Amino acid sequence: MNIHELIADLRETSATKIVLLVADGIGGLPLEPGGKTELETAKTPNLDQCAKDGVCGLSVPVLPGITPGSGPGHLGLFGYDPLQYRIGRGILEALGINFQVGAKDVAVRGNFCTLDAAGKISDRRAGRPTTERCIAMVNKMRGVKIPGIEIFVEPVKEHRFVVVFRGEGLGDAVNDTDPQAIGVVPLTAQGHDEASKKTAAVVNEFIAQACKILAADAPTNGVTLRGFAKYPKIGTMKEVYGLNAAALAVYPMYKGLARLVGMDVLDAGSTLNDQVATLKKVWNQYDFFFMHYKYTDSTGEDGNFPAKVDMIEKLDAIIPNILELKPDVFIVTGDHSTPSKMKSHSWHPVPTLIRAALCRTDAVTEFSESACLRGGLGQFQAMHLMLLAMTHAGRLGKYGA
Amino acid sequence: MNIHELIADLRETSATKIVLLVADGIGGLPLEPGGKTELETAKTPNLDQCAKDGVCGLSVPVLPGITPGSGPGHLGLFGYDPLQYRIGRGILEALGINFQVGAKDVAVRGNFCTLDAAGKISDRRAGRPTTERCIAMVNKMRGVKIPGIEIFVEPVKEHRFVVVFRGEGLGDAVNDTDPQAIGVVPLTAQGHDEASKKTAAVVNEFIAQACKILAADAPTNGVTLRGFAKYPKIGTMKEVYGLNAAALAVYPMYKGLARLVGMDVLDAGSTLNDQVATLKKVWNQYDFFFMHYKYTDSTGEDGNFPAKVDMIEKLDAIIPNILELKPDVFIVTGDHSTPSKMKSHSWHPVPTLIRAALCRTDAVTEFSESACLRGGLGQFQAMHLMLLAMTHAGRLGKYGA
Repeated sequence: MNIHELIADLRETSATKIVLLVADGIGGLPLEPGGKTELETAKTPNLDQCAKDGVCGLSVPVLPGITPGSGPGHLGLFGYDPLQYRIGRGILEALGINFQVGAKDVAVRGNFCTLDAAGKISDRRAGRPTTERCIAMVNKMRGVKIPGIEIFVEPVKEHRFVVVFRGEGLGDAVNDTDPQAIGVVPLTAQGHDEASKKTAAVVNEFIAQACKILAADAPTNGVTLRGFAKYPKIGTMKEVYGLNAAALAVYPMYKGLARLVGMDVLDAGSTLNDQVATLKKVWNQYDFFFMHYKYTDSTGEDGNFPAKVDMIEKLDAIIPNILELKPDVFIVTGDHSTPSKMKSHSWHPVPTLIRAALCRTDAVTEFSESACLRGGLGQFQAMHLMLLAMTHAGRLGKYGA
Repeated sequence: MNIHELIADLRETSATKIVLLVADGIGGLPLEPGGKTELETAKTPNLDQCAKDGVCGLSVPVLPGITPGSGPGHLGLFGYDPLQYRIGRGILEALGINFQVGAKDVAVRGNFCTLDAAGKISDRRAGRPTTERCIAMVNKMRGVKIPGIEIFVEPVKEHRFVVVFRGEGLGDAVNDTDPQAIGVVPLTAQGHDEASKKTAAVVNEFIAQACKILAADAPTNGVTLRGFAKYPKIGTMKEVYGLNAAALAVYPMYKGLARLVGMDVLDAGSTLNDQVATLKKVWNQYDFFFMHYKYTDSTGEDGNFPAKVDMIEKLDAIIPNILELKPDVFIVTGDHSTPSKMKSHSWHPVPTLIRAALCRTDAVTEFSESACLRGGLGQFQAMHLMLLAMTHAGRLGKYGA
């Protein structure tokens, strides 16, 4: 019996409300061994009080030692086993630009490349064009027409774009056309099953027409595609948990991930204050609120330790505005760690707190990596966090008699 | 390779003895945040000494956030994955009244209900008859005869009884006849496979005859049945561990659960002293002893914090009598937590100690929730406890060369 079947058996209705605040990449590392992490350096009186009132622990996003991307990181927090539910690159790119992918779509990441006179790739990123040029080239490619297929070409940034092929019976078992090498011609798309053969034929026709359209536009005179992917079959938060879930995110990628699990993606403005204002406005309409805070991750990715400290303190400052609403269960965690020292996502377990009436409090009095290590939740798999959320919310009955 | 296959490969014979003392529902919560739990309040010098001499941790009965019933709680402690081995309600009810269910049996929980003139249910619990009346009505129902099937009808309490249908080729994929509503007629039993269709026919005939017999006995003039279940196929403790296991339990439910995994269920009297006396008497005849103590759970279920504290202290007092026997491995744990504050089972991890010659001792010097959190066993899945029991008893060899 898998966990979702178990929840379906045990779940109970309740009027309780759960707030899941994801501080992206909040976990960190000290710059020097023995020093303090970003979270340990930041002054966080409000998070510390929550840690004191609640129960803490460290979340392992996928498995010990596994560094997750945003997709698996969030799927885990939403209670979907990130090793079972995989999101293809094409879908993730489409989600990242807020493109609403549907069941008939195959999405793929595109790169502009430079082709020489023999049709061989001389630059895999077409000299990193400006995003303006990317947009212009994408507009030209919208001239590609294939009968029976709707095609959406959307710019991303520099040499990157997204293509979505919409039609009946398209499969996604298609190889990348990017050979990941220069001096060779792009690969031909081939389908590994009947539905994917149909896709491959469409893809090859798309590339042929696009290259004809772009022929005079060197260095952006060629395209490669990789990561063909369909929308994964995934139960919604309503189906799995019986929760009416709302997402209050600013960045498209996280809106997309929330939409993937069936949350209502609200217009939450562009600042933390906007997000909290939206939260207050819709408080009576939902049971579950996913609030996403990006800047703990982006400052970490920048390797900017003091900026990450600052962003953590800014987050701390709005906590009282959330608590004013009296959520029955308030959770603060991250989808992974992003130590400034590494300028990247990492595998290190993520500080997590649950504040709820029936949590068994522990001796933790501050929200930090070292304090959470001694917390009552221990080190736990991120995909079990929703079980804890549901049970603390009085939404899970007893298993077996 | 599952855990039982692994154990079968690795297990070794030994003359060592293991005592598993299950203090039902021993884990708790403080009444006020920041206060002490029942176990932290109780004076437990003997358990504290065991914690000091041994290694401690917190057991997660099923998964984080999952509140187990007694069935899954105990199966986990006996080393059977509670998500893999499920015990149907009918079987658990039969175990609870000490009915010895066999391989040809389908057991089901029955309720007396009140039927109106149109045959519709007007009271699902027949006005909660006295247990005396339940016994009288059950005696009447024993008049039901169906060729080729042995039928056992056994009273439980008030409106509740158990029916066991014994015959060749009976399946248990049969729907409940209890519609869980009033103003409607009871449902007809239907089988979802050939064997269960045979059962359904027997069940419908049973209900028809029973209702005829009870026709003049309103408000107990109808019956509904739910939770049709066969005895689960489950390896015995002897088969899985090579252990000669004895159960020293007072309450039928726990005797039944012990019998389910093939333990010899001994007459252990009705008090802790009786149980210890029995333990001494049979010490040389078995390798493994399951001692069950109910009152830490029942006082928790009553919401009686001081009474639970008292029951914990009473348990503590007999520990020296067990240790006198010099068990090689002595384990104290619970099948789940039962905080007085919640008056129910809960999901909170369960304090656990192992006292054995080769345990790696930790800094824990008292047996409590907060101390066990810092223990050397960490937080572990209950179904792994028997691996620890076996290895500390010198009964598990090396895996691989």
